[in-house]
Amino acid sequence: VAPRIVVDAMGGDHAPEVVVEGAVHAARAGGVSLVLTGPEARIRPLATRFAGGEAPLQSLPIRFVDAPEVIGMEEQPVAAIRRKKQSSILVGLRLVRDNEADAFVSAGNTGAIMAAATLVLGRLPGVERPALAALLPTKDGTTVLVDVGANLDVKPQHLEQFAIMGACLMRAVRGIENPRVALLSIGEEEGKGNELLRRVHQDLKRAPVNFVGNVDGKDVFSGHADVIVTDGFTGNAILKSCESLVKELFALVRREIDGSLMARAGVLLMGPTLRRIGRRMDHSEHGGVPLLGVARPVFIGHGSSSAKSIRSAIFAAATFAERRVNEAIEEQVRQLALVAQEDGPAGEPHDAVASGDARKVRP
Amino acid sequence: VAPRIVVDAMGGDHAPEVVVEGAVHAARAGGVSLVLTGPEARIRPLATRFAGGEAPLQSLPIRFVDAPEVIGMEEQPVAAIRRKKQSSILVGLRLVRDNEADAFVSAGNTGAIMAAATLVLGRLPGVERPALAALLPTKDGTTVLVDVGANLDVKPQHLEQFAIMGACLMRAVRGIENPRVALLSIGEEEGKGNELLRRVHQDLKRAPVNFVGNVDGKDVFSGHADVIVTDGFTGNAILKSCESLVKELFALVRREIDGSLMARAGVLLMGPTLRRIGRRMDHSEHGGVPLLGVARPVFIGHGSSSAKSIRSAIFAAATFAERRVNEAIEEQVRQLALVAQEDGPAGEPHDAVASGDARKVRP
Repeated sequence: VAPRIVVDAMGGDHAPEVVVEGAVHAARAGGVSLVLTGPEARIRPLATRFAGGEAPLQSLPIRFVDAPEVIGMEEQPVAAIRRKKQSSILVGLRLVRDNEADAFVSAGNTGAIMAAATLVLGRLPGVERPALAALLPTKDGTTVLVDVGANLDVKPQHLEQFAIMGACLMRAVRGIENPRVALLSIGEEEGKGNELLRRVHQDLKRAPVNFVGNVDGKDVFSGHADVIVTDGFTGNAILKSCESLVKELFALVRREIDGSLMARAGVLLMGPTLRRIGRRMDHSEHGGVPLLGVARPVFIGHGSSSAKSIRSAIFAAATFAERRVNEAIEEQVRQLALVAQEDGPAGEPHDAVASGDARKVRP
Repeated sequence: VAPRIVVDAMGGDHAPEVVVEGAVHAARAGGVSLVLTGPEARIRPLATRFAGGEAPLQSLPIRFVDAPEVIGMEEQPVAAIRRKKQSSILVGLRLVRDNEADAFVSAGNTGAIMAAATLVLGRLPGVERPALAALLPTKDGTTVLVDVGANLDVKPQHLEQFAIMGACLMRAVRGIENPRVALLSIGEEEGKGNELLRRVHQDLKRAPVNFVGNVDGKDVFSGHADVIVTDGFTGNAILKSCESLVKELFALVRREIDGSLMARAGVLLMGPTLRRIGRRMDHSEHGGVPLLGVARPVFIGHGSSSAKSIRSAIFAAATFAERRVNEAIEEQVRQLALVAQEDGPAGEPHDAVASGDARKVRP
């Protein structure tokens, strides 16, 4: 059976047009069945147009569930979800909660989606803090950075859970048997960082993950780790500054090239190569970031999502649901709790040397 | 009189060769006089070689001060500066302290330089925490990010002082009359972020700087602010991840181009354009980051500094000394303290509305 994905038709700076367009493309590509939430009178005509008519639309696996309210991109999240019970976000999440669908995708107000998802779907058993996981392109593959914005203030056990969840994601979705997990610090040595980081370093050594130690910012794109764990403030700053850097760099290249006839001729020759490079750096290829730790799959797209990004996010959510990432997270978080129990009461600083490496799953 | 710059000949991954080479280039270019610290028997022959002989070396404004010990790049900073009193770092800083030179430049162990500079030179009056300031290229100019690694844990008053120091730097060195200062947050709205960020936002509103509000990571390269203030952990992560992104991106472009004859022909045509772009992204153009808040000018270069980076860092340090950045910081920090006094006891949350904008220097 094809995964059933709810798409918030009203989420994103260019909603509902690009969202509906992306959904139609995904439905045509096959392998998913879609539910679009939003004001039906507004989104059904768009879908008809993008599908090429009533009849072609009816042949596609798309249905509509009316949600008259819309939460704006700049609304205060908690107030908005309290007030707008019939918004496309809440209506959509309830469909997933009631098992009428398998996953939820939105490029809308990130804060509202996170708050609503936690409220409506709940957290996976044992998970203290859901976290956003961004897949970043590296030299040879992909590194997942967790958290990129859900938690500004974190405790050691939160970072440990981010490590577990990130590893489950990479295993299930990327097929990496034993993902290398690293802690973002300000240098690679074990003793570096502040008290929190030193504590987490020790904790991760005994957590049921393949902990490879500290990395610093220069390893975010080097591919030295499959999972990099940090707080949501730092992760968000890295993600957004790097996106902005790529954008400005491409704009700079465009400006410089436009000013030179020779360079423009050169670009013509380089066409296919430049397109390959552009594709690799284009976040629409990834589509969205999963909100790890909530009880059902939730993907949040970039506010500026294009139709292509929406399509990618839909398939990413389908894969996440099919590969049962949440079941894996639940199981691993349970194992982590057992390790913590054996080590003594939570909150006690551990002694790295005394505990040994017996409980680690390092290969 | 040309500024007298001490250069730690033993600092950096490729020291002493590239450091001495960069110093000889700077001395030849003129406008500075240099003191090289390090094991003289090792560095003088290098300088002779790069200068092209004994006679040409003697015509250059370079002198040597013997420092037999070397602090390695990976040594534990505090232990190293305690043990190696005759290291090139400590000998060099003492020359600046004793007014035998005007500034200190090193591409060595960052932690050791920071600790030694604070110990030997002391802080400027009123400055609580020295901070590293990185100049980043933006669309139309430069943004300075403070702190990029000196302080992992910060208090509101530290971030305020970073704002003051960054603004003084941009005013003195870049000639920006009234630098726009922004606070790095996770969204632009005033109410976003955690308690610390909300508090700092209110404090910066009444600080003697041109505070333009919150920015998030996407503004680091957009040029929307001249100074962006954040904690050293986040700033370090941004700086290093972006450096790594550029490096991997250039490597990707190179690999893709090598695989295509057409693309290689295109690159030939684009030569001058690509070189212009590369120069703009190349950190060796900036050379080093100033350690703001210590009593005398100190520049720290990238560990992987080339001769060109060293040369750039020497001239950046000379400009910093000539433009009297430290005098400006001292004066502004004094003003900040006056504002805080008028507003009531330190540590009290301020009321933004009540205080008005009278004490702001916004144009």
